[in-house]
Amino acid sequence: MVFNFLPQECNFFDLFEKQVDYAVDAASYFKRLVTNDSIDKASLQKMHNLEHQGDEITHDIFDRLNKTFITPFDREDIHALAKELDDIIDMLYTIVNRLSVYKLDGADKNLVEFASVIEESVCAVACAVKGLRNTKQFKSVSEFCVEVNRLENVGDSMRDTVLVELFERAKDPISVIKWKEIYEDAETVLDICEDVAHVVQSILVKQA
Amino acid sequence: MVFNFLPQECNFFDLFEKQVDYAVDAASYFKRLVTNDSIDKASLQKMHNLEHQGDEITHDIFDRLNKTFITPFDREDIHALAKELDDIIDMLYTIVNRLSVYKLDGADKNLVEFASVIEESVCAVACAVKGLRNTKQFKSVSEFCVEVNRLENVGDSMRDTVLVELFERAKDPISVIKWKEIYEDAETVLDICEDVAHVVQSILVKQA
Amino acid sequence: MVFNFLPQECNFFDLFEKQVDYAVDAASYFKRLVTNDSIDKASLQKMHNLEHQGDEITHDIFDRLNKTFITPFDREDIHALAKELDDIIDMLYTIVNRLSVYKLDGADKNLVEFASVIEESVCAVACAVKGLRNTKQFKSVSEFCVEVNRLENVGDSMRDTVLVELFERAKDPISVIKWKEIYEDAETVLDICEDVAHVVQSILVKQA
Repeated sequence: MVFNFLPQECNFFDLFEKQVDYAVDAASYFKRLVTNDSIDKASLQKMHNLEHQGDEITHDIFDRLNKTFITPFDREDIHALAKELDDIIDMLYTIVNRLSVYKLDGADKNLVEFASVIEESVCAVACAVKGLRNTKQFKSVSEFCVEVNRLENVGDSMRDTVLVELFERAKDPISVIKWKEIYEDAETVLDICEDVAHVVQSILVKQA
Repeated sequence: MVFNFLPQECNFFDLFEKQVDYAVDAASYFKRLVTNDSIDKASLQKMHNLEHQGDEITHDIFDRLNKTFITPFDREDIHALAKELDDIIDMLYTIVNRLSVYKLDGADKNLVEFASVIEESVCAVACAVKGLRNTKQFKSVSEFCVEVNRLENVGDSMRDTVLVELFERAKDPISVIKWKEIYEDAETVLDICEDVAHVVQSILVKQA
Repeated sequence: MVFNFLPQECNFFDLFEKQVDYAVDAASYFKRLVTNDSIDKASLQKMHNLEHQGDEITHDIFDRLNKTFITPFDREDIHALAKELDDIIDMLYTIVNRLSVYKLDGADKNLVEFASVIEESVCAVACAVKGLRNTKQFKSVSEFCVEVNRLENVGDSMRDTVLVELFERAKDPISVIKWKEIYEDAETVLDICEDVAHVVQSILVKQA
């Protein structure tokens, strides 16, 4: 069955697809930034723009939610989904901004690894969210959620390994302060992805 | 139209007005403290009292909400509004407490600047919340919300500038740890004010 | 009156009792760990297992909530209760994991004290939650909630005292970074217990 309850102009599925596309763009750009470039004003601005576009679509979803009586799934789930997807992009921007504030230039192999896992996870999130439109895809939606949960565990281990290393090598406390925060924020992106997966899974349960 | 659905004894508007008045008191006292005084036991206690009074009114709102069937706007918005207003005062107390624990005496020009922006933002929050009582004021309520959002952006830039400076001058890592936290907490107050503005804006949308 | 609205197989009270029992187990094991043992792989794994068992019961509660129409108290309170109880165990695991990552071996008297207060608070939480099953116990439920609130205040003072001491003795900034986080996380466990008590209190108010 394809959900088609809503007039075109307030189709939540379209809005969520746009929102996850921004999240995927942000995750890809994040990976490119930490892999290749140093963070200059232009790249920080581009990330800020993505964050801003994400914000606008989030508020669009909230506004329509407040004005719409019939929604394709529970209002609280729509709200939570939009909020968490917004948080993904916000956190990616936060990390890029911190790299700039802390003047941490140049690629760091640990952060590059995090960025890869983040990109994978955000792509799985996107597939899960897009699959919500069609009940026939619910089995694969569920599999994408499992994958997001798996990647969050991968991120936990990475963070622990990286912090052990950081504190063992620790010569300069200032550098420890900076990188500890960057790595923890990177892991937080994966936590937020997991939160999205939980919302998606609860939508599946209710529709079952 | 003036909302007057509720018997005097459980008028949520009166309670919210009291709560935002405490928040304004706390923000003003906070500014005075970081501008003029060092944090002694008496000033810490006074801030604690404000936080406690805020707590009491918050729980009063929650209790009435739990016992009331007809509310002037959505229950979840009333809950969120009371919670976020409470968080403003809590965070101000947290900062003052940290200044005391870290023995950071004397005025710091960056924190003084933050305190000014915080006071402006909390006052705008108060005007927005008080305006909810009367639909004729909804246009100005909306403008106060825009102002709160603007001040949050001001706070973001201030925090970035201040952290760049802090890490550039960084001689003593212990001092970096302390001030980084104080400045981030100060910016968080503005984030919470923005959260209040979002709740208020969603109330406006629903009443429109 | 004893609530008995629900078929045995989806009795939320049974699930909550299981969940608080895991929380009490985790708090007791946490106290034993920080008192006697250094954190080896086996003890970290045991704590992880408790966290995992807690997770499973939490998701069990969420799933049943999504599938159940009649619930013994408000859906949002059931959700909040399960979420906060889960957070208690998560945070205890987080602390043990950090002790391991930071290679902080051996008993620290401050942390031992925190662990005692945490165990007391989690036990009071357990008594409060278990009492929800029977309206005749509501008076004692309320008293357990007051006790949890009291212990949160005790924790606040402990954290302040301990941080003053930590920053006064501060020779090694790396050690300050580590212990500051551990102590703050320990206090956060008590904050979460207080959040549970607030949910319980709001359930009481609604049932009154």
